[in-house]
This record gives sequence, C-alpha cells and structure tokens, in this order.
Amino acid sequence: MREVFVIGIGAGDPDHLTVQAIKAMNLVDVFFVLDKGAAKDELVQLRRQICAEHIVGDDYRFVEAPDPARDRTPDDYRGAVLDWHELRASLYGQMIRDELGEDGCGAFLVWGDPSLYDSTLRILDMVATSGAVAFECTVVPGITSVQALAAGHAMVLNRIGEPIHITTGRRLRAGLPDGVENAVVMLDAECSFESVAEGDAGDAWDIYWGAYLGTADETLIAGPVREVQGEIERVRGEMRERKGWIMDTYLLRRER
Amino acid sequence: MREVFVIGIGAGDPDHLTVQAIKAMNLVDVFFVLDKGAAKDELVQLRRQICAEHIVGDDYRFVEAPDPARDRTPDDYRGAVLDWHELRASLYGQMIRDELGEDGCGAFLVWGDPSLYDSTLRILDMVATSGAVAFECTVVPGITSVQALAAGHAMVLNRIGEPIHITTGRRLRAGLPDGVENAVVMLDAECSFESVAEGDAGDAWDIYWGAYLGTADETLIAGPVREVQGEIERVRGEMRERKGWIMDTYLLRRER
Repeated sequence: MREVFVIGIGAGDPDHLTVQAIKAMNLVDVFFVLDKGAAKDELVQLRRQICAEHIVGDDYRFVEAPDPARDRTPDDYRGAVLDWHELRASLYGQMIRDELGEDGCGAFLVWGDPSLYDSTLRILDMVATSGAVAFECTVVPGITSVQALAAGHAMVLNRIGEPIHITTGRRLRAGLPDGVENAVVMLDAECSFESVAEGDAGDAWDIYWGAYLGTADETLIAGPVREVQGEIERVRGEMRERKGWIMDTYLLRRER
Repeated sequence: MREVFVIGIGAGDPDHLTVQAIKAMNLVDVFFVLDKGAAKDELVQLRRQICAEHIVGDDYRFVEAPDPARDRTPDDYRGAVLDWHELRASLYGQMIRDELGEDGCGAFLVWGDPSLYDSTLRILDMVATSGAVAFECTVVPGITSVQALAAGHAMVLNRIGEPIHITTGRRLRAGLPDGVENAVVMLDAECSFESVAEGDAGDAWDIYWGAYLGTADETLIAGPVREVQGEIERVRGEMRERKGWIMDTYLLRRER
C-alpha cells in the first residue's frame, strides 16, 4: 500500500524540525510541493535545504505542481475554499497515483502543524473518499507559528486558568465571542487588530505581535493595541515591501 | 549572566524533541526538576532517558526539589494557584542562585510547550521581579498534547475558517462561549465532556479523545459524545488504575 506522510516542519526555523519528522523524511521517496504567491521561491528553497540537511543520502525527489488558482475575495468564503479543495484533491490524487510506486512513500511538508489552519489533511480525505488511489496516511506534528510567537515573547498564551481562542482575521473583524480574554489571530492580511481598538473605552487590549517567526527576519512588537498599532502597521508594510511577502500572527489579551 | 532555558520536550514521545531543543540541552549544566504525584517516577525517568539519548558527553547534572504542596480543591482557584506559584518562585530562585555559577546555564524541561497551561515562565517572571537572582531566559517551543491528539486522529482541529477554543475542564463545566464550534479541553480530571451531552437535543457534539498521547500507551476514541462517553469513562478509569496516573485531552466539535 502507498504511504503518505503529512509532516509538520515548524514555523520557519529549520531547527523546529522534530526527531520524528527527520525519521519520517528519511523514509520518503517523493516530496510533493504545491506553493503559490510571492513566498513561493523562498519557501520552496527552504524546504529543499531542510531535506538536504536532514536526509541521509539522496534517494528522494521533489515533485512540484502548480497550485490551482483561488478566488481570494469570494462572496461565499466556505464555498470558494471547497471548490479550490476539489481542484487540489484531483491534483493530489493524480500525483500520489502517478509518482508513487505501489509500495512507495510520499510526503507533504507542511509549515507549522498539519492540524492548525492547514488544508492538506482535509484534501487527502477527499482523495481517499474519491477512490482515485488507495494510501495510508500518517501525521507528524510540528511547531506552529503560535508557539514560536509565545516563545519569542517568552510568554504563556493564557493567564491562570483562562481559555485561549484561536481565530482568523476575518472572524476577529466580526467580533470575538463574549468572555474571550486571550485571542490568537492567524491568517490576517488586514491588520484586523485595529477592530478591537475601535471598541468603547472599557475594552482595552494588549497585543503581542510577531512576523517571520523562527526565521532570521523575526520581528516582535508588544504593547497596548492603541499605542503600538501604528508601529505594527508601519513595520508590517515595510517588511512586506522589502521581502515581497509577509507571514505574521499575534495574541490579543484583554487588560485586567 | 546566568542563563535559564525553558525547553518544551513534547507530549511524551521522545521523538517529539526538536533540533532546537537538542541543541539547547547540550548547552545546559544543570536540569532543574520538580515533579509530583503518581506520574513523578515515570516522568522523571523519561526525562533522564531523553537527556541521556540526546546530550553528547555527561557534563550535566539533575537537581531535584520536592514540589510545594498545593490545595487541589480550593474555594479561590486563582488565589490558591498564586500562593503555590509564590512557593515555587522562592524555590526556583534559590536553585538558580545556588546551583548555577555566575555564567552557568540551567534548564527546565517542560512537557508539551511552555506557552500552554504551564506555569514555569510565570514563576520565572516572579523570580526575576523578586530580584533574588539575575538571569536571562530563553524559551524553546515543543509539541503539545493538542498536536499529538490531532496527529493521532489524523485530523485538523478546525473546520474551514472556524475558530478553535482551548479551555479547561473547569471552564467547560461552566459552559462554552456562544458560537464555539471546536473546543479543545485540557486539565480535565472529571470527564467534563459529559456536561455537553446533557444539553438539549439541539446540541449534538462529537468527541476526539486521547490519553498518554505520543507514548506506547496512546489510546484514541472518537464518536458522538452521547455514544462514546461511557466507553471513554470506562477505558480512562481502567488505564488510570493500571498506571497510577492519567494524562488525557480531547476535542469537542459541534455537529453540523
């Protein structure tokens, strides 16, 4: 039976790789890569470096495929994502069937952890359901940008006994559920933290922000949202301009 | 200046260790250990094994201290935790001052990740504030039981675009915030998932449960809460009886 690993490789620091990930990578014949956008070249390059550094021998290869186009500003967000997943599923199924032998071992290397805002597992479920090709799937967890953010700020995500809410920029703009004291925001292309600063005077929030976490470009800013939001926007804009892409995440914490 | 690493060492599988953690461990002179309860011997043993396997040479030592007693059923939960943190802070300060030379390097090895429901960083902040001893603190992130749970079930914690709420058994029993669809529950000694099954017929939840994640005893159960809650309680009770301790966590997901 074909075997497919979905391997979390951390937030950007090659040293985030776990021993488990390294052992799995050494079993792999074919690494499947679909990247897109401005980050593509730098991130594909980094993945190849990680493989070269940790795989003994050169008995493996990369198969790259163009990522299907995706509507980034759809009226129906979930529907647009599902359509894009269908396209990807058909591509993944083809690659697993055509590029792996019947006892072959393939892998998808996922930034962060495969369990957090990543679609690889969901798409592989669709491939399995479609019957296009049979395979076994094994998941190897990885360090997320959320953990790299907390480590960079040397902080705990929760205050004593408090919950942690992980959400998206899109959801943050629609408002946090009542009672949320600590919100980690991911996938935010629009500085949505501004929306909490616009609340009434009773809502004061601190922000712990980080970009390019775990890499040489890691940048951290922390403070009350109202005081540092301008600085974050400026730094974020400058860095995105310079590098051509940005990955950032942050924790919002309601002040006591 | 003294240096103190707080190193996440994963959920139980020694292969969860990252390259970054291994590099940091190789710089350490003294590992500080405070353990408690029934899990003590097995977990201290596992930590020593991890060090023996990954540290080159034997130029390091362990310093163990008895963990201060803690009121487990207090009227004032947060106050009781703070009192216990004070006791720990005084002990940590003493150990860092007395056991490390002025340029010495110490470490606390933390199960999971130092940013998630762990008090080590909070206590080290208290030590720094108290002025008992000066030191630099560096955090190394680690794989959490939440990630090991998701990997075990080969699942994504969120459905498309949905938030993830990480909370405690205590908080779950008090009710989830409105609109929470995915709740990861930690620190639950009382099978609090039963509380969601007691809601009205409109509230149907699935549970993805795991115990001893990442270890040879890893056990996974998944299904609608109403159907599998009895099985989880039975298995949980039997395993706790047999091993003398249990560590478990789970995801609750509202059915669509």
